[in-house]
Amino acid sequence: MDHSAAQLQRLAIAPEQLQDHQIHLTSDQQHYLCDVLRLGHGDRFIAMNGQGQLWVAELQPDARFARRLKALGEQTELAMPMMLLAAPPKGNHFDQVVRSVTELGVSYIVPLISQRTLLKPSSNRIQRWQRIATEAAEQSHRQIIPKVLDPASFEKTVMQDDQGDWQRYICTVEPSAPNFLHCLSQALDQESQSGVAVMVGPEGGWTETETQQAQTAGYQAVSLGQRTLRAVTANYMAVSIAIAQIELHTAYPGGKVCTKKSP
Amino acid sequence: MDHSAAQLQRLAIAPEQLQDHQIHLTSDQQHYLCDVLRLGHGDRFIAMNGQGQLWVAELQPDARFARRLKALGEQTELAMPMMLLAAPPKGNHFDQVVRSVTELGVSYIVPLISQRTLLKPSSNRIQRWQRIATEAAEQSHRQIIPKVLDPASFEKTVMQDDQGDWQRYICTVEPSAPNFLHCLSQALDQESQSGVAVMVGPEGGWTETETQQAQTAGYQAVSLGQRTLRAVTANYMAVSIAIAQIELHTAYPGGKVCTKKSP
Repeated sequence: MDHSAAQLQRLAIAPEQLQDHQIHLTSDQQHYLCDVLRLGHGDRFIAMNGQGQLWVAELQPDARFARRLKALGEQTELAMPMMLLAAPPKGNHFDQVVRSVTELGVSYIVPLISQRTLLKPSSNRIQRWQRIATEAAEQSHRQIIPKVLDPASFEKTVMQDDQGDWQRYICTVEPSAPNFLHCLSQALDQESQSGVAVMVGPEGGWTETETQQAQTAGYQAVSLGQRTLRAVTANYMAVSIAIAQIELHTAYPGGKVCTKKSP
Repeated sequence: MDHSAAQLQRLAIAPEQLQDHQIHLTSDQQHYLCDVLRLGHGDRFIAMNGQGQLWVAELQPDARFARRLKALGEQTELAMPMMLLAAPPKGNHFDQVVRSVTELGVSYIVPLISQRTLLKPSSNRIQRWQRIATEAAEQSHRQIIPKVLDPASFEKTVMQDDQGDWQRYICTVEPSAPNFLHCLSQALDQESQSGVAVMVGPEGGWTETETQQAQTAGYQAVSLGQRTLRAVTANYMAVSIAIAQIELHTAYPGGKVCTKKSP
């Protein structure tokens, strides 16, 4: 990407808003571009379709339209999708989780209803989380917008087996569970995977039955360490580890070496 | 630790509060134990001195005192200290960072004043962060309470060289910087370290001069991935990776293996 494009504001558009080279802006988008950002005729922004394509776009004299100029070849996405299945903590705490894990690079966020889940999200809340994910994707220069799925019951989720050869994990506080980083690193070394899915529990943890159900269904029980984490922090840690390990595994061995200190 | 102790409330006490087997409670602590938790004579809690020692304690008829009973041999701390040096983002966002990184396991938090730091924390704010770290340490069953140090200028910090053979990193957005997880894993494999220190920048990033100064002073420049992270998210990710890698390195090879799937 050329340097000038790096500074431009990003805006997510739905596929149907793009017709030929014209982008039909919604009234919210017009308001945002013209009133909030104070852009006018001839000013540029980046339009992203949320599915991997980005274009430089230019506002037209009629601010309901922008003209699609050139496509951007930017690539900051992981080579493999990552899915977070999380029992949302109560209150608004999950808002921050959605924002941060979107920046980190998740592809799917599945709100799980487990036995001890305190928050059963309404469809309004799912829409709110999708808006947060969209904004965070724009701001963190993602090419795809993570999809916030409808809430799913824990039991149905572990029973359905349509995740193909994804590598699946359930984070537990079981002292005997092996280190997540260790297991993921081994799994990615050994065989090719289509994606990584990680389950993070509610404040009260999983029930014993749930942990067993998940393991029977092919989820590996792993530990995030010896300390007791709140649910939000467990989400940050699980996703950070997964993303860092996927990036390491798919980007290396590359040209990058670890300096003079450890050549 | 026996199972019953796991359920007890934890309370941080200063070393001078403990005399022989008697704990002299402050009026705030009395209020918390008696009015908030509604504990009375004979009820128990866990007293922690924040430096690695914990005891079961029992409230006395005079609620200004608790009697120290047996010591707890609990060990959930990392085998190696981890220091986070972070330019705090503006507003109250760093409160959540202090809370989460305490749960994750940091030993020291150093607020850094870099050229683009937006928040120069007052001594009140440092005290506030120390209180948050203390509460989070109690709640996450730490044995030590992370120390929130006084704010330090970036330049002085990189220039002083009293960190011995700690492994030091500075997180940058430089596209050529190697993956942090990769570098830390190599470093911990190669030689014994006394600790790991990680610098995370402010919203606007480090200046070029700062990144160079740090590298000259022995900090290795590393990347947290190809996505653009807000400062809070960068802190979560940097600390998650460091903690997971330290725990993995110091706890393995142990008896724990990665299940049937990857034996």
